[in-house]
Amino acid sequence: MSSTEVKLSRLLILAQKFNNFYLSGFQKCDIRPFVVEGQQVGLIKSDVLKHLEKYPEVFCIRACEQTKQGLVELNPAFRDYNERTEQLEKVLRNLRSENLFPALQGWRDEYFEVKADCKALLKMERAATPLFGVRKYGVDINGYVRHPTLGLCIWLQQRSNTKETWPGKWDNMVGGGLSVGFGIKETAIKEASEEASIPCDLVKNLVSAGCVSFYFESRQGLFPNTEYVFDLELPLDFVPQNADGEVQAFELLTAKDCVERVFTSDFKTTSAPVVIDFLIRHGHITADDVVDFTQIVELLHVPLQSLYTYKARFQQSKKQPQLLPGGSKNCNCAILQKISVENGHKKAN
Amino acid sequence: MSSTEVKLSRLLILAQKFNNFYLSGFQKCDIRPFVVEGQQVGLIKSDVLKHLEKYPEVFCIRACEQTKQGLVELNPAFRDYNERTEQLEKVLRNLRSENLFPALQGWRDEYFEVKADCKALLKMERAATPLFGVRKYGVDINGYVRHPTLGLCIWLQQRSNTKETWPGKWDNMVGGGLSVGFGIKETAIKEASEEASIPCDLVKNLVSAGCVSFYFESRQGLFPNTEYVFDLELPLDFVPQNADGEVQAFELLTAKDCVERVFTSDFKTTSAPVVIDFLIRHGHITADDVVDFTQIVELLHVPLQSLYTYKARFQQSKKQPQLLPGGSKNCNCAILQKISVENGHKKAN
Repeated sequence: MSSTEVKLSRLLILAQKFNNFYLSGFQKCDIRPFVVEGQQVGLIKSDVLKHLEKYPEVFCIRACEQTKQGLVELNPAFRDYNERTEQLEKVLRNLRSENLFPALQGWRDEYFEVKADCKALLKMERAATPLFGVRKYGVDINGYVRHPTLGLCIWLQQRSNTKETWPGKWDNMVGGGLSVGFGIKETAIKEASEEASIPCDLVKNLVSAGCVSFYFESRQGLFPNTEYVFDLELPLDFVPQNADGEVQAFELLTAKDCVERVFTSDFKTTSAPVVIDFLIRHGHITADDVVDFTQIVELLHVPLQSLYTYKARFQQSKKQPQLLPGGSKNCNCAILQKISVENGHKKAN
Repeated sequence: MSSTEVKLSRLLILAQKFNNFYLSGFQKCDIRPFVVEGQQVGLIKSDVLKHLEKYPEVFCIRACEQTKQGLVELNPAFRDYNERTEQLEKVLRNLRSENLFPALQGWRDEYFEVKADCKALLKMERAATPLFGVRKYGVDINGYVRHPTLGLCIWLQQRSNTKETWPGKWDNMVGGGLSVGFGIKETAIKEASEEASIPCDLVKNLVSAGCVSFYFESRQGLFPNTEYVFDLELPLDFVPQNADGEVQAFELLTAKDCVERVFTSDFKTTSAPVVIDFLIRHGHITADDVVDFTQIVELLHVPLQSLYTYKARFQQSKKQPQLLPGGSKNCNCAILQKISVENGHKKAN
């Protein structure tokens, strides 16, 4: 096996690693859609479910006749955003005090908005989202330099040793979760200032460059993550400086060294997709060099939308499928119906 | 509804249009994996299947006990690449003479290689690939200019009125299918010269930028296509010139006009993903502007690999699934098992 082939396999193995739940999690465990106001917003594993069963006034756990798939529904009697948020938070604080889940030890009083079809349904403590498999959105900035002799170079940050998650690991230059009340580019600009002290005259060059999606599972729970990626070309003489204590170092690496760093256990697994996507978009990982290229690109864009459209499944099952679904709700029902039938089939056996 | 929202819906509808088979084709019709040497290389619809049944010496059409899914297998007695190619071609020439399929009227004596796990299994006349749902690979070049006053501008080509497919439609500056014996960048360079007379000193700036995948269906058959995309910045004063008679015009459009052009019926539907991907990567379509942004990105990278791994399904069904599948063959079995179970379920009813 040539050295190129070795590298290729490593890239695919890495892409499989940050998609460990997408690739085999669905088969391993009994998972149920988490439904709020008739729309799926998450997935719940049985190890979490057994503790939610103690709160029947908050969670309705029931079978679904049409799909034969069990589901967990937030009590539909809750009237609005605020009541849903409060009722859920009461449970979360209980679970936290019982020390049941490692994820809840990272409680940080920061809220993520839980949405379906762009409608905000409730907000949830950020640390709790992996327990409910709620889709999480973040932003990442690829800070790079076109070096006259070294070529494309990339700035990485080393996370502070005191961070709740992935302490001390290498990471993208700037990254952060989307919190309630902030836009996407707005979050990128805010994080660029806090994490790397990027001044306004440089941050104005930020280029939106798409998004990556993957489905990772850790001891904390489920991470169906979508990261909006931005590229930022920086002048040769600029050095990022941390301003919020969340970063302990920055380092400028050549594209080649950056690939090597991403493979090490010192790199935050869930930040690897952003780096790989950047190197692909800028011609440093190419289809001629990497035999698994199309598979890797596929694993940078896994169909999370398809896995989170419980409502669509219902609608679809009531009518003849059409060649061109008219709206976003019908999107990707093909795959979804397979999931529902699979679960039904397993139960029947 | 604001004018921005109108545009967003149009983008999603377009992404659904070039994925009409991915989104609803699997439910509409009885489809069977096309298997060569134990590996899935295509999907065959019932309207094609009924004609293949007349050639039992070439195609074994049978049920599969493990998955309960019917499949079409190229006779495994054929010894090698050449015998498989010849036997299949004999059938194709018969079908063509019987005038059964519009696709075969476009016969062009150009071969596409049919591969699985990077091993070439046979070659097939290009016009026939949609009948067998064989994955097709192509290259596309986004030729662009950074105009001092108009900003990012994009070169489009108008296809010749005499082309077999999509005559007279607007298309990417340069594009072509991967044929037997040519590399990916090599194909891009060859097409750049033939279609747009791009000289060597410009084509050396070609940047590999990833790939898009979609699953389109037309009257010709199935198009599970992956397009490797390249970006090429051109000088302001360069004007592409066609050299092979396949292009009747070139036009330079602003990014905004390019978006509008892509929405018209004058644009080749299956080239739209490349333009949308380019505009996303270069910050002209952003997540803050487009409410369906993550869905659109998902539909530019549909999981074709997952839909074409019949062999993996077998391997997986014999053993306990593992958290991290070790090799590429196991990739995305999660979704695949769903497909097999769905089909089994349908038959059982």
